[in-house]
Formats: sequence, C-alpha cells, structure tokens
Amino acid sequence: MEVFEAIEKRHSYRGEYTDDPVKKEDLLKIVQAGLQAPSGKNAQTTEFVIVDDREKIFQIGQMHTMQAMKNARAIILCIVDKDPEAVYEGYSFSVEDCAAAVENIMLAITALGYATVWIDGWLRLEKRAEKIAQIIDLPGSKKIKTLLPIGIPKEKLHQREKKAFTQRACFNRYSL
Amino acid sequence: MEVFEAIEKRHSYRGEYTDDPVKKEDLLKIVQAGLQAPSGKNAQTTEFVIVDDREKIFQIGQMHTMQAMKNARAIILCIVDKDPEAVYEGYSFSVEDCAAAVENIMLAITALGYATVWIDGWLRLEKRAEKIAQIIDLPGSKKIKTLLPIGIPKEKLHQREKKAFTQRACFNRYSL
Repeated sequence: MEVFEAIEKRHSYRGEYTDDPVKKEDLLKIVQAGLQAPSGKNAQTTEFVIVDDREKIFQIGQMHTMQAMKNARAIILCIVDKDPEAVYEGYSFSVEDCAAAVENIMLAITALGYATVWIDGWLRLEKRAEKIAQIIDLPGSKKIKTLLPIGIPKEKLHQREKKAFTQRACFNRYSL
Repeated sequence: MEVFEAIEKRHSYRGEYTDDPVKKEDLLKIVQAGLQAPSGKNAQTTEFVIVDDREKIFQIGQMHTMQAMKNARAIILCIVDKDPEAVYEGYSFSVEDCAAAVENIMLAITALGYATVWIDGWLRLEKRAEKIAQIIDLPGSKKIKTLLPIGIPKEKLHQREKKAFTQRACFNRYSL
C-alpha cells in the first residue's frame, strides 16, 4: 500500500475481528516496522512482546470491555524502561521513541489489511499495565507503555474526522 | 512510495541540501500527513508552523552548526501547548500525539524524495525553542516541541543500523 493511502486509511478500530489469524510472517513485518522507527540518538529504547498465545490473549483481552480486545487475534505490547537512560544532555526520549514506533506499526497493520487501536491511558489505570506485565514475566525495571490489539476487522470503518488544515497549520507566523 | 519502503528508507539527514525548493504542494501534503496522525481521544493537539520564508529560515538555521539546518529549504515547527489539557482520566498525550505526527511527516518527506532530521533535544537547550518562538510570534502558552528541516538531499544516505529483531522483540514472554 502506498504511504499516503496508509496514513489516510489508518484508524482506531474498537470493533470485532474475524476469526482469521494474524499470519506469523505479517506479525514479523509489522514489528519490524516498529524497529525501524527513529529514536533519540538511535537509542532504540522500545522493545516489543508479541502475544499470539490464545490463553494469554484471552487473559489480557478479558480485562477490557472493547470488542477489539476481547477477540484480538494477536496483541503487541510496547515496552520501555521505567527509568529511561538519558541519551542527550540529560534528556531521554523514550516516550517519543515509542510513539514513533507505534505509528510505524499502525501503518504496517493498515497496509497489511488488519486493524488496531492505540491503547495507552487505559493501561495506567487500575494497575492494568502491572497485571499484564505479570502475564508476560516482565522485569520490574520495565513497563508496558502501549498495547495494540490486532485482527482482521469485521466492520469497515474510517479515520475519524480531523480539523481542517487551516485550523492546525499556518505559514511563517503563528496565526491559529 | 510503498509504506514499508518509506519506513525502511526514512533516515536522519544532517547533510547539505540542493538548491531546489520544497514545492508548496509537497509541503501541504507533508503537513497533511501529520494532521492525519492518531492522537489521544482524537484531541489533535499538535499544530504546525511551516517556515518557507527565506529570511526566517536563515534566522532559525544559522542557530545550528548542522548543514541541514544552515541550508534548509523549508522548516516545519511542531507546536504543542506548554500546559496540555487532560483528555482521559487526568492524562494528556500531547508528547505521544506530536511524535506520531512527526513520524507521519517523516514518512511523507521520504516518499516525496526529500530528507529531514527529527530535532527535539537541541531546542530545549540555550532557550532555542523560545528564540524561534519569537521569530514566528508564538503565543506564550505554546511551545515548539519538534523542528524538521526539509530539502532535497545532496548525499545519498541510509537509515542507521538497527539492532536485530531478536534483540528487541520476543513472543508471549519477555526474554530479551
């Protein structure tokens, strides 16, 4: 799929997935896209745990009321250090690094005909990130920053409406 | 350009640009890609100031020793609120939102034959973000989070080497 088409078609999918599995070769391509994202000082701070074990998917998915979690065919967990190392003048960029990787992954998912939704805030409540961390034996120094369920969408949905260009962008001088 | 090709070809370009301008229609497509990025609760928190005025580009570019800044043909400034509004259970996601938009923009830049580099940490030092904010009349409630110089690269460079898949990704159980 052409890059501008993928950018336009990417959308948050919270609905049901078909019973079709996510092919292993596709999972590898999808996560590889995340690995190729930029990161501050090329520190490559984001790691990935790909959950394709049915029992573990069920354990994670049943924590959420969303259909896309309940019948996800695979789940990608994006992992960062709880206390990320400074890579430039005392700053770390692990939040930015992870978000760039997630966006690459979402575009790859879209291009391959699957659908997903970016789950972050939900993990921060009711110790959900910690509970899922136990399921995947995550070391205490790491945390799950983002969760992405994957499957083939049953419903055809579109990207939510965005504000017009002129409401968010301008030339040479801030005038919004 | 196909999405996986763009992901693979995207790289940080710090070298010289040719004298060719960045076409206005391309700048619009590039920033539009940023507008279409996901954002927490679709809050669309990132705004963009596109600098294509030669004098302003010079004022900004000469602050940096990097060739890509000194002879940028255009500069995209990604703007966020200094004190972003909470959109979900007390949390805001403006850092994540901006990074996802930047990644879309970088892929669009790559697909159209230009090159760029993600500049963030540099802005945080020596009040550079504040100095550039003055050049574009940015309100005090906003800050420049990311800067992207753009032009047609003189040198053919490649994405920096990334760690192997198995060093950063695993299945079902954290084992890195």
